[in-house]
Amino acid sequence: MITQPMEIENRSFEIIYPYIKNLNLRDDEVKIYSRIIHAAGDVDYAPIIKISATAIDAAKAAILRGANIFTDVEMVRTGINKRTLKKFGGEVFCKVADDEIKEIAAREKITRSMAAMRNFGENLNGAIVAIGNAPTALFEVLRLVKEENILPAVVIGVPVGFVGAADSKAALLAQDKIPFITVEGTKGGSPIAVAAVNAILYLLDNSRN
Amino acid sequence: MITQPMEIENRSFEIIYPYIKNLNLRDDEVKIYSRIIHAAGDVDYAPIIKISATAIDAAKAAILRGANIFTDVEMVRTGINKRTLKKFGGEVFCKVADDEIKEIAAREKITRSMAAMRNFGENLNGAIVAIGNAPTALFEVLRLVKEENILPAVVIGVPVGFVGAADSKAALLAQDKIPFITVEGTKGGSPIAVAAVNAILYLLDNSRN
Repeated sequence: MITQPMEIENRSFEIIYPYIKNLNLRDDEVKIYSRIIHAAGDVDYAPIIKISATAIDAAKAAILRGANIFTDVEMVRTGINKRTLKKFGGEVFCKVADDEIKEIAAREKITRSMAAMRNFGENLNGAIVAIGNAPTALFEVLRLVKEENILPAVVIGVPVGFVGAADSKAALLAQDKIPFITVEGTKGGSPIAVAAVNAILYLLDNSRN
Repeated sequence: MITQPMEIENRSFEIIYPYIKNLNLRDDEVKIYSRIIHAAGDVDYAPIIKISATAIDAAKAAILRGANIFTDVEMVRTGINKRTLKKFGGEVFCKVADDEIKEIAAREKITRSMAAMRNFGENLNGAIVAIGNAPTALFEVLRLVKEENILPAVVIGVPVGFVGAADSKAALLAQDKIPFITVEGTKGGSPIAVAAVNAILYLLDNSRN
């Protein structure tokens, strides 16, 4: 049994590499793919991960200038390495459990995660949005971009499930205003969003690499 | 776009049902399978989910008598419906980020999640253990069972990844002292552990069903 975390991670990435080596990935893309596949324990993620051309550089630049991260659910907030983010000045915000958001969602007959994204509003300009659960939250962010010209630095959008998730991610893929990291189809989830965010943080944090 | 949470969930479970209907599941097993597959967005979980004969009844009985839940990582603690658990008197504990646990792990050259399980020790008797991430935590719980006769009511053990996860779950499947819920192979993760725990909570909470 291997009990040293970095050794477990390195061994895991060695096992994953054969599944991604033919995808012509950049070094920093390899890190993101590896961490996502590691988090899911599922090499079938390799062909469905989609990273837009400028997404990693945009995410790095945002973190370096102290941008905040806005998440749809508490599990994503919990998993993000907040200590590393804080070194650069950023914080993680999630409003889905706030009483105010519950009231708005009930009144407007929308999901709480959708109400939370709408409520973040202009705070999303220049920020990183990380959606790991709710298709409705991703649809709402795409609406804010299109209708209210709110422009996040990058959207990490990996909502999961059989009702709306694939469509919301197809809509993210189809737009070209916002750099993105996503996965096609029904798979996704909080650990996938966390894996992508933390991979980028570790690309910037020399003490970790 | 469907924006009512219960409607999203019901529609999702309708989509999932054809993939599990030939598995001869009990009604309460259907709920657990559905919620796991829903959380992963992945119908390929259907054949790899394994629930021991007495696991669901043991988990229900434990919750009804106010048993606590012990998790390996904070993301599992975050996702569990603590408000519903509290109705029955239980709480969720996770020690992986405690300074004391970090010191023990560094001193004994073991993972933090392993040190945390060892530190819970006799508190695990009669409790629910929910492991969503770390194979080492599951191996440690199985050691506590075997060598120290510590007997959780049920172990929900779904660690994820390519280094130790499949082996740790095979060891859980191979023992017959503790009822269990697990998935075979490399897949798993925090949302899978959370899905199983919350499915059982919702079986007991009439206000939710």
